[in-house]
Amino acid sequence: MQKLFPFLAKSSVYLLKNEFQEMSKGITNRATDYSQWYNELVVKADLAEHSAVRGCMVIKPYGYAIWEKMQAVLDKMFKDTGHSNAYFPLFIPKSFFSKEASHVEGFAKECAVVTHYRLKNDESGQIVVDEDAKLEEELIVRPTSETIIWNTYKGWIESYRDLPILINQWANVVRWEMRTRLFLRTSEFLWQEGHTAHATSEEAIAEAKQMLEVYAEFAEKWMAVPVVRGRKSENERFAGALDTLCIEALMQDGKALQAGTSHFLGQNFAKAFDVKFTTKEGKLDHVWATSWGVSTRLIGALIMAHSDDQGLVLPPKLAPIHVVIVPIYKTPEQLAQIGEMADKLIAELKPHDITVKFDGRDTYRPGYKFAEWELKGVPLRIAVGARDLENGTVEISRRDNQTKETVPQEGLSQRLIDLLEEIQASIYNKAIEFRANHTTEVDDYEEFKRVLDEKTGFVSAHWDGTVETEKRIKEETKATIRCIPLDAKEEQGTCILTGKPSNKRVLFARAY
Amino acid sequence: MQKLFPFLAKSSVYLLKNEFQEMSKGITNRATDYSQWYNELVVKADLAEHSAVRGCMVIKPYGYAIWEKMQAVLDKMFKDTGHSNAYFPLFIPKSFFSKEASHVEGFAKECAVVTHYRLKNDESGQIVVDEDAKLEEELIVRPTSETIIWNTYKGWIESYRDLPILINQWANVVRWEMRTRLFLRTSEFLWQEGHTAHATSEEAIAEAKQMLEVYAEFAEKWMAVPVVRGRKSENERFAGALDTLCIEALMQDGKALQAGTSHFLGQNFAKAFDVKFTTKEGKLDHVWATSWGVSTRLIGALIMAHSDDQGLVLPPKLAPIHVVIVPIYKTPEQLAQIGEMADKLIAELKPHDITVKFDGRDTYRPGYKFAEWELKGVPLRIAVGARDLENGTVEISRRDNQTKETVPQEGLSQRLIDLLEEIQASIYNKAIEFRANHTTEVDDYEEFKRVLDEKTGFVSAHWDGTVETEKRIKEETKATIRCIPLDAKEEQGTCILTGKPSNKRVLFARAY
Repeated sequence: MQKLFPFLAKSSVYLLKNEFQEMSKGITNRATDYSQWYNELVVKADLAEHSAVRGCMVIKPYGYAIWEKMQAVLDKMFKDTGHSNAYFPLFIPKSFFSKEASHVEGFAKECAVVTHYRLKNDESGQIVVDEDAKLEEELIVRPTSETIIWNTYKGWIESYRDLPILINQWANVVRWEMRTRLFLRTSEFLWQEGHTAHATSEEAIAEAKQMLEVYAEFAEKWMAVPVVRGRKSENERFAGALDTLCIEALMQDGKALQAGTSHFLGQNFAKAFDVKFTTKEGKLDHVWATSWGVSTRLIGALIMAHSDDQGLVLPPKLAPIHVVIVPIYKTPEQLAQIGEMADKLIAELKPHDITVKFDGRDTYRPGYKFAEWELKGVPLRIAVGARDLENGTVEISRRDNQTKETVPQEGLSQRLIDLLEEIQASIYNKAIEFRANHTTEVDDYEEFKRVLDEKTGFVSAHWDGTVETEKRIKEETKATIRCIPLDAKEEQGTCILTGKPSNKRVLFARAY
Repeated sequence: MQKLFPFLAKSSVYLLKNEFQEMSKGITNRATDYSQWYNELVVKADLAEHSAVRGCMVIKPYGYAIWEKMQAVLDKMFKDTGHSNAYFPLFIPKSFFSKEASHVEGFAKECAVVTHYRLKNDESGQIVVDEDAKLEEELIVRPTSETIIWNTYKGWIESYRDLPILINQWANVVRWEMRTRLFLRTSEFLWQEGHTAHATSEEAIAEAKQMLEVYAEFAEKWMAVPVVRGRKSENERFAGALDTLCIEALMQDGKALQAGTSHFLGQNFAKAFDVKFTTKEGKLDHVWATSWGVSTRLIGALIMAHSDDQGLVLPPKLAPIHVVIVPIYKTPEQLAQIGEMADKLIAELKPHDITVKFDGRDTYRPGYKFAEWELKGVPLRIAVGARDLENGTVEISRRDNQTKETVPQEGLSQRLIDLLEEIQASIYNKAIEFRANHTTEVDDYEEFKRVLDEKTGFVSAHWDGTVETEKRIKEETKATIRCIPLDAKEEQGTCILTGKPSNKRVLFARAY
């Protein structure tokens, strides 16, 4: 096939150059204003931007490339655990929502509602909604798909032999948010939602736990973000769930971020949609359910967990570009020679799924390119100059810790492979250490508040188990119970607020 | 990672068993009622079904697996030609639509319109739309994304150095259809839409042609569906395009199906959204555009092009399962022995991206399984019985031509690889032959009508080039101009309807 744009095809096109002209201005320091730092970084690193539609984002090619990497890994993990993908409608009839009481309660306040199906020209030639094309029943743009899916499963399930159903959907969803933030909270976002149906409660609970472990493994091994595996308190549970499991990560400003949830839905949706099956013993029972999801929010978590004042720091396993080669040359011959070296490296590393980009643009100077790829978080940068050509060497710079080394071109591929592994491990360890330094056991309410204000991070404390106490703590400190860790040890103690007895610590934090 | 459902994980889960119980009833013959045959096949082969939401479909795991295969191939072709993926909002402000006159004209009559962003409980406890949450400006659920994307590109383009922009989006779109049909015409469907921006008209035209060729190659080499590359007449052009290129395929009932389109949009959207750039020469000019798309409609084309009265016939390159092994056994030892053979085959063929399924279910008999996998279009079926175990043989059945052969287990993998290639070629050749037998040159209007009614297929005829003639022919015969083939040869002739002069033949057909 003919290539119209061979340069672009070869070197990937995550460049929207006019943004780069802004780059030299740099970004706000984290210490100065963490929130501002994040907002600027997302835009200047070309990940995403606000769209003309209130609360909706445009995910730009470089940001979307990270999402594609995440999707590929998660999709394989889902399939390896027996799940298949399918697709259910974007629209949900309003009446479906009303069938599960706590579900509609949870989502009614943030629903985009379709009421008409046609536009027309009015007398003055303006485009207006055609009032003759009003829907008999309004349609909700899915904020999540339990209702439409369980209405569908009703037609698929008759007996225990039809179970389990293990389905995942990659889709866009809409939750009308008043205060939005790129990746972290937008009115439309991309996600995956698993929806499974089971013959027994035990099996559904095991499935919910399994998928939590899939998420935890993904966060830790791929995103290099350590997470606490836990259970939500009743107050923070998904609308319609009996039990919500979650993974909680810690960001560099000491705030927590919920990175994924896996719900045991009991028989709630099966009852709401009358989905029964014949058991092996010939009895009729309602089907047991789980649902679980992660979203483009993970990109926000990735950014906030690792990046620094120079820009993104991406874990190699999810970086769209692993190695960038910047030639420093005076003559066309030198450029050609470096280009040849680059071609060889690209070919050698391709079988390892390592993406090498040769930045041969003559419109920008090396210093500018260095700053650009730093901002974009490419894990390794190779600079090759005239002296290197003479000596058969290159200079490698690590993005994560900014160290440099000059190494022979001989054996370079293996050195890069090793370094990428080292960086992946190093970023993870740094995050583990940060979390260890920002997790504090507290037994006193005043100290609890002081830690939240000054040290920040996770606060491990006793709680009396009531919604009232949880709500009062939230009102007074803005901290929520992030989770009851699955590995929390039994321990007698007293609630920091009420002094009532408690038998395990829970994790509090201020959160995104 | 622990596997909760090892059997399912191992053998893929495209089974929804209650559907199978229906299977023995068979499906309508094509000759009896082609349309009915199609509708039954889509549902009984577990590809898709109608949802509770008017006009929207549920794509079931087996159907979605075909779409995933299509996506993977197309996505690689897009990237190999220099494109990146990105994501733009689902919603489009109504005012954006009005900016390009012919665009809104084309889509206004089939728009889902969001008018409110909240539900509430009314006094009687019913869930109703909250009238206090009415949007100031209505939002349209995207039927296609030119307007929101060009409004975004305005912020990305300043100079010729920012061009070209080569972006693709995988997304769902909504076009409110009154008469729907699974895969072929639904209110919501999945697709990809490429949107590119260029500095010159020539470059944009070359891009539109390149992407048409990508689609044609995909249709022919992967779907095994031969297509005519052509240009739409003015009357059939995309709303807002200067030129619409298309690929047209022929279905087994002699009706044509538009399988993909690639549009040269000129400067229409750049003008509507005021997107200008500084040329190399320092002048200001509007940017040139293309857009191009294919959708889940391709699954419909795939089904209608190849399948038969026994069910689906899938080209191996897009089949979710390539080989199914059905054990025919009397003792557990025999089953175990066949299972071992299957494991070996699965392992041997995995590196070739060939998916082998071992159907070890003891709830169904071999004959039932044969019918099931025939219905689902698995290209090759292997049966292994006690005699085969003794002789070291297996029986292979081809789905496409129903032939069988008994071959030694020794060398089986290579035989299967060869057969799959043979089937891919054979299906394509059969379709080529069918099209050749159903493409007729006609120079007389009465004959034109007779061919359409009796022989069906493409009719190659002279046309005077006017919209009026085209519309009259459509009214009188239900045939439309499918395209003006790109390779149509110059030839003097007279219009079949008006007798006016014409210098090339165009392709007419009745179409989906």
